[in-house]
Amino acid sequence: MAQRALLLIAHGSRRAEANADLVTLAEMVRARQPADVVEIAYLELASPSIPEGAEQCVAHPDITEVRLVPYFLSPGRHVAEDLEEYRQQFTTRWPHIQFHVCAPLGLHPHVVDALLERANEGYRV
Amino acid sequence: MAQRALLLIAHGSRRAEANADLVTLAEMVRARQPADVVEIAYLELASPSIPEGAEQCVAHPDITEVRLVPYFLSPGRHVAEDLEEYRQQFTTRWPHIQFHVCAPLGLHPHVVDALLERANEGYRV
Repeated sequence: MAQRALLLIAHGSRRAEANADLVTLAEMVRARQPADVVEIAYLELASPSIPEGAEQCVAHPDITEVRLVPYFLSPGRHVAEDLEEYRQQFTTRWPHIQFHVCAPLGLHPHVVDALLERANEGYRV
Repeated sequence: MAQRALLLIAHGSRRAEANADLVTLAEMVRARQPADVVEIAYLELASPSIPEGAEQCVAHPDITEVRLVPYFLSPGRHVAEDLEEYRQQFTTRWPHIQFHVCAPLGLHPHVVDALLERANEGYRV
């Protein structure tokens, strides 16, 4: 039984194709970490919301930890403040479960690699 | 002499630390692709603006191509529409230079790797 849930969180967009990326990302994460429960949520403009996503996580039996995983690049207000506020709310609501906010992607070396590949795509020296 | 310029573009934030990432990213890209001119710009809330960044790129002698490189995850409105509009403006203003909008980072496999590392940070099985 899974003990850990990952709640993947994107900003949310009015464009369906931007939101669809999070669904695809969740499938990729499930395939690579089958022991984890993986759910998704959007900060705004799309559903499920973050509280709805958290409910889906804790509805799984035996969950002891929920990790809020930002699919965000920057340590902007959303990650720095909004997710921390949610963490505190959830800790009060479900005191038997540990909630943790993960770091945004930021300048992770793999992100820099991805950016360079995008920058060079289709480029002929 | 450099012939290609990369204009790295972030959304821009009221938080200085979020904007600072783009400065650091530019240094990393310059170190890895020393043949390219590398400049930065913010879509909003910070400067230089995208037109200012484009001016800095074309001010370098011998530039024949400027690539607008989004430091964005999603194909949201900003990348899909705003950057394409800028590209058209710049093409009219500097017809002797080729402008190109690169793809957002999206679900590049390296981005998924980075997300999993962030999700697992500090986690003990």
